Amino acid sequence: MQHRAIGIFDSGVGGLTVCKEIMRRLPGENLIYLGDTARVPYGTKSAETVEQYALDAADFLVEQGVKLLVVACNTASAVALPVLRERFQLPVIGVIEPGAQRAVESQNHRIGVIGTEGTVNSGRYEEAIRQLLPEARVFTVACPLFVPLAEEGWAEHEVARLTAQEYLQPLLAAQIDTLVLGCTHYPLLRKTLQQILGSKVLLVDSAEETACSVAALFREQGLERPEHGGQRSFYVTDVPTRFERVGRAFLGRDLTQVEQVRIG
Amino acid sequence: MQHRAIGIFDSGVGGLTVCKEIMRRLPGENLIYLGDTARVPYGTKSAETVEQYALDAADFLVEQGVKLLVVACNTASAVALPVLRERFQLPVIGVIEPGAQRAVESQNHRIGVIGTEGTVNSGRYEEAIRQLLPEARVFTVACPLFVPLAEEGWAEHEVARLTAQEYLQPLLAAQIDTLVLGCTHYPLLRKTLQQILGSKVLLVDSAEETACSVAALFREQGLERPEHGGQRSFYVTDVPTRFERVGRAFLGRDLTQVEQVRIG
Repeated sequence: MQHRAIGIFDSGVGGLTVCKEIMRRLPGENLIYLGDTARVPYGTKSAETVEQYALDAADFLVEQGVKLLVVACNTASAVALPVLRERFQLPVIGVIEPGAQRAVESQNHRIGVIGTEGTVNSGRYEEAIRQLLPEARVFTVACPLFVPLAEEGWAEHEVARLTAQEYLQPLLAAQIDTLVLGCTHYPLLRKTLQQILGSKVLLVDSAEETACSVAALFREQGLERPEHGGQRSFYVTDVPTRFERVGRAFLGRDLTQVEQVRIG
Repeated sequence: MQHRAIGIFDSGVGGLTVCKEIMRRLPGENLIYLGDTARVPYGTKSAETVEQYALDAADFLVEQGVKLLVVACNTASAVALPVLRERFQLPVIGVIEPGAQRAVESQNHRIGVIGTEGTVNSGRYEEAIRQLLPEARVFTVACPLFVPLAEEGWAEHEVARLTAQEYLQPLLAAQIDTLVLGCTHYPLLRKTLQQILGSKVLLVDSAEETACSVAALFREQGLERPEHGGQRSFYVTDVPTRFERVGRAFLGRDLTQVEQVRIG
């Protein structure tokens, strides 16, 4: 069991930020990553549709014999976690619970959450945070332009700064001391967001927190692969060209030998 | 035959700008519109994938017994027109040829084209323009942020102005006198684009030009429906909520009774 790979999926390149953190924290693990690039994005689509897409992606990874499923997409974590846990006999980790666990370290209990329309509409972050800290006040804002800005390579561009100023205005007004980056694209915008919020606001990167949770689970259940130098395989549902080009900034290294597969 | 509906498809809400112009020019026609909202967008996906999606959408419309197929999406027009014309026995009109016909009225023969990555990479606009005007110089720029800006309702926001300034810089430098809006979302940005380019640059709206081409074809082939007050039906492949909300600005009127269907 220890020797099996970790299966990770996302709608596209965003989940590569989660992949990167898992690679950093657990360098000996074999990883299989699937980006559903033929149907990306999930963030503007309905819960029903995203649930179906998540099941298709998970089916593919489970067929590869993975030991753990990581849902490296906030929107899919928000709507599909229950159905995935019901369908499969292996542990399933999403990105929302780990982010919420970190967020409740907030001093003033005023927590901001930014994400896609799908994630914000689901109300899952409020729910997860309030379960851990019932007195928390949670302020959520959907930021649809952040994903295309990150993919365009404009994360530190004046346009990104102006967009962030507009989106974050209600969170500044609410005097949050903690902001959850509730979309796997947003770590690329970290510098821009921190500049606008000021250095005293803690940014919670769900990619980092999810990698932490994976490591903790492996320690608990003795699932860590004892060897060094894990293998990584990358699959996508559309032609790999754009994924390889755009994904580089998300993974922090070159992406090669990405293979196209059919799912669903 | 005259009494049959016109079938129109797009990846999502963008094609509603084409729908709107056809409704204005041919108010007696019955229209069936399909937005493939479960798989939107097409503009960042590969030619192979878009071709398959276009075939799925066209199959659905042809089964409804339409008399004409309008591909109200630049990306699908760029890559799928030949395969659609080969597969189906009815006339198929895309948005690229009509736009190119208008663009070659350029005085200085320096023509700009803006569109999605898919449309720009296809090279179809250059090809269509050069076929009509071999001495034309065509300058193309992919503008991936314009679609999310239009859908966010920020078409005249400072962020849109700044983004347009950056994207249009090479076209200003090239001294174009004509700009083709090579994506069905872009008519919403018309005011912002015109401000940056100045009033002397002609903006070619492929939605308007396509409606013209449909009217001309109907006159030629005697296909125009002689009655008044056409019926309009709208179908989508995801839950209709977002389409109804966002689509309103594209159609210029309320969208109600949109129905979800499965295709592909």
